[in-house]
Amino acid sequence: MLDKRFILSAFGLALVFESLFMLICAGVSVLYGEADTHTFISSFVITFLTGGICWWFNHRKEKEQLKRESFIVVTAVWVVMSLFGALPYLLSGAINNFTDAFFETISGFTTTGASVINDIEALSHGILFWRSTTHLIGGMGIIVLAVAILPYFGFGGMQLFSAESAGVVNEKLHPKITRTAKSLWGIYVLLVALETIFLLIGGMPLFDALCHSFGTLASGGFSTKNDSVAGYSPYIQYVLVVFMIFAGTNFSLFYFLGKGNWRKLLCNAEFKIYLSIILITSLIITASLCIIDHAPVEQSFRAALFQVSSIITSTGFVSADYSLWHPYLVFLIFLLMFSGACVGSTSGGIKLFRHMILFKNIRIEFKKMTHTHAVIPLKIGKKSVSSEVVYKVLAFLVLYMVICAIGTFLLTFVGMSIDSAAGAVATSMGGIGPGLGSVGPVNNFLHVPHSGKWILSFLMLLGRLELFSVLILFSPNFWRHQ
Amino acid sequence: MLDKRFILSAFGLALVFESLFMLICAGVSVLYGEADTHTFISSFVITFLTGGICWWFNHRKEKEQLKRESFIVVTAVWVVMSLFGALPYLLSGAINNFTDAFFETISGFTTTGASVINDIEALSHGILFWRSTTHLIGGMGIIVLAVAILPYFGFGGMQLFSAESAGVVNEKLHPKITRTAKSLWGIYVLLVALETIFLLIGGMPLFDALCHSFGTLASGGFSTKNDSVAGYSPYIQYVLVVFMIFAGTNFSLFYFLGKGNWRKLLCNAEFKIYLSIILITSLIITASLCIIDHAPVEQSFRAALFQVSSIITSTGFVSADYSLWHPYLVFLIFLLMFSGACVGSTSGGIKLFRHMILFKNIRIEFKKMTHTHAVIPLKIGKKSVSSEVVYKVLAFLVLYMVICAIGTFLLTFVGMSIDSAAGAVATSMGGIGPGLGSVGPVNNFLHVPHSGKWILSFLMLLGRLELFSVLILFSPNFWRHQ
Repeated sequence: MLDKRFILSAFGLALVFESLFMLICAGVSVLYGEADTHTFISSFVITFLTGGICWWFNHRKEKEQLKRESFIVVTAVWVVMSLFGALPYLLSGAINNFTDAFFETISGFTTTGASVINDIEALSHGILFWRSTTHLIGGMGIIVLAVAILPYFGFGGMQLFSAESAGVVNEKLHPKITRTAKSLWGIYVLLVALETIFLLIGGMPLFDALCHSFGTLASGGFSTKNDSVAGYSPYIQYVLVVFMIFAGTNFSLFYFLGKGNWRKLLCNAEFKIYLSIILITSLIITASLCIIDHAPVEQSFRAALFQVSSIITSTGFVSADYSLWHPYLVFLIFLLMFSGACVGSTSGGIKLFRHMILFKNIRIEFKKMTHTHAVIPLKIGKKSVSSEVVYKVLAFLVLYMVICAIGTFLLTFVGMSIDSAAGAVATSMGGIGPGLGSVGPVNNFLHVPHSGKWILSFLMLLGRLELFSVLILFSPNFWRHQ
Repeated sequence: MLDKRFILSAFGLALVFESLFMLICAGVSVLYGEADTHTFISSFVITFLTGGICWWFNHRKEKEQLKRESFIVVTAVWVVMSLFGALPYLLSGAINNFTDAFFETISGFTTTGASVINDIEALSHGILFWRSTTHLIGGMGIIVLAVAILPYFGFGGMQLFSAESAGVVNEKLHPKITRTAKSLWGIYVLLVALETIFLLIGGMPLFDALCHSFGTLASGGFSTKNDSVAGYSPYIQYVLVVFMIFAGTNFSLFYFLGKGNWRKLLCNAEFKIYLSIILITSLIITASLCIIDHAPVEQSFRAALFQVSSIITSTGFVSADYSLWHPYLVFLIFLLMFSGACVGSTSGGIKLFRHMILFKNIRIEFKKMTHTHAVIPLKIGKKSVSSEVVYKVLAFLVLYMVICAIGTFLLTFVGMSIDSAAGAVATSMGGIGPGLGSVGPVNNFLHVPHSGKWILSFLMLLGRLELFSVLILFSPNFWRHQ
């Protein structure tokens, strides 16, 4: 029997938590004297009351017995929060239909940053703040998920890496989870504050600085401007690059950094690969833009570095329209959508440690061909990777590709062109934001058919929750199991 | 020290073998009273003499010591044969430059069937016959490779399947290889003869029937007509479908069939999946063509079945221009390019047994999530698959995808559009023939830049030789190793 009271009370807690942020947005509305204040008050009341009633069902029980319930909560809480999170858009009239409002909200919570809003600058400050706040909340959720919950469930081989590099995660979910989450949330909030200060120094107004900081550290990508961050100064763009790269870094490395342990950061194999890919890809693009398009060097380098950092970290801010670049650069950007940044960060997608395991495996196969009888262990850094983890990573990768293929097929079926569909799927699964073709960096998702938006919403959730935690709910075995 | 005499003598044997087919083409030219006779005589003399001189270096040695030499031969012999195989095209003037002639030849030998010839019907009978003969020779080579040599080397997990279903393969390369190859060549030739008879019954002239049979059983795809097989009767198209499906079937199943063992065929898990995919995909396409495009049912079904069979078996004959279908059907065809048919057949690409292992692995991961401590073995049919094989299959898949990505990047770099590049790469790696966009089913590869043709030639070889046997030659380790 499922413990429905546990599930309900978990939803309740989440909704009460969410409603408090709506109250903050009401405050923002009041501050700017906007008519949206009542929107947020109504949203707050509905969300808070529903949450409070659900929370009422709370009862203590030995947590170890609630594995199935936890599976359900981990996925469903994102849907529940998105349902209520759509309220401000709908009540204010900023978005006039439920599908679009849900899409915008789940895109925010999953820190994807894909939008259906044409004129972002026409939105009220309250709505803009709520939009960026969904990123902030999503990012907080992801940190708990990525560092504590998903590794505990052992999804897709994540246990290995967080366990190795964090050292703060324990096999038991409780009570370490609270401590871990708190220290990582501390780092998260600190980085948001730092970025806000650096953006303020660059002359960005406090409101925009906060919204962009929320979007950066959550690797979200909602901006307050129609042209994303293309209109900002080079200084501001470089600040964003730095903090996007931070957002894609394993947060537990900051934890060690805070303790003065620089070696953990500098010796981290994934982090080194991460920086190398950003650098190499940026230089390829810079060279191409300079030599073939005769663009100025600094401008080319900045455009390259910004777009590469934005895509690989799955943030999705845009400072230049990469869809106008040469096809081979567009294809390179498309490939980057399947990269992802470090595990334990807020970034989405496949993530580099999985690629590293897959590549090491190939190297080992080559070695075996010349040393027939050798047993060569798969190592990342100094740590051996068990076959258990390799299987999980393999399953993850194949599933990821299969879902991308099915998603692209379905989107072409509802009428999108192949390149736009492939771009939309890659960007949704990877939690990035801008795609290719009709959903490219200077377009948005408004024109996608409603059915397509529901497919993409599902893909955002799938990608965000590392596939397995969502898909297990569709397994008859899961429901049969006592 | 490499045994260079062994390598040279192997090349010699292959060239002498190849030259005999040139002699046959000379006979065809004589028969049709064409001026090309001297072309083939010259080609024969050059190839035969070069081969004879190399063969002169033959010397007996314990074969077990020649693993590295075998690696080199397995790959290089295709290049050497293609270099000489390009002679008839160049000497006759049918193709006026070396790049194109080499591309056409290696496309023939690897049984890809991608062509650079605009007006096929303008070619002489001799040249047409040589073109189709490269498929016949390639198919013979593949059978030895797929059933005996590659499994022996253990590439990409093939050892499992051929060993299981064939029963005719032994761990030692010699002397069983000769016997195995002979019995499978017997089946191959028998099927070619059978198809020729069925095509003759349908009213196809003997010359065309032979050429198309060569193209079918080798899963090649060179036709004697400009519109491939679109102009032939429904009967002929259905005959081609049946034999394309045969070409994609594990040849050792025919071996057992010949011994009256039907059960081996009917109980073969890969064969069942193979037929199911053909049927299901064909029905989806048929429904779509009937309902959305209001095309007649039989015509839709035939077009669907033909194109699906042609792509999945990596043959590449075309009876309808699938690039004009709805984008979601085009995408479905693109996906099929990554399927491949059964192991131990002449078909190319990833092949179904690998997909089966990958999917089983995903299922097991799901099962593990609800049964935490269970050890669930990966089984195909009744046979357990060792982790060794899973690793190899994993390495193969990732490498395949990475090479596709790099290939597409390089082709866009030399100026192709992304969809054409992706299609060209998928079709070359899979050994199919027609791609998408500018290299679609009614186009050819003539307009691809020369650099692109060399890239694609390399990809055809890579795909045909299951990646590892070619790439190992680029490993410094391979050359360092004594």
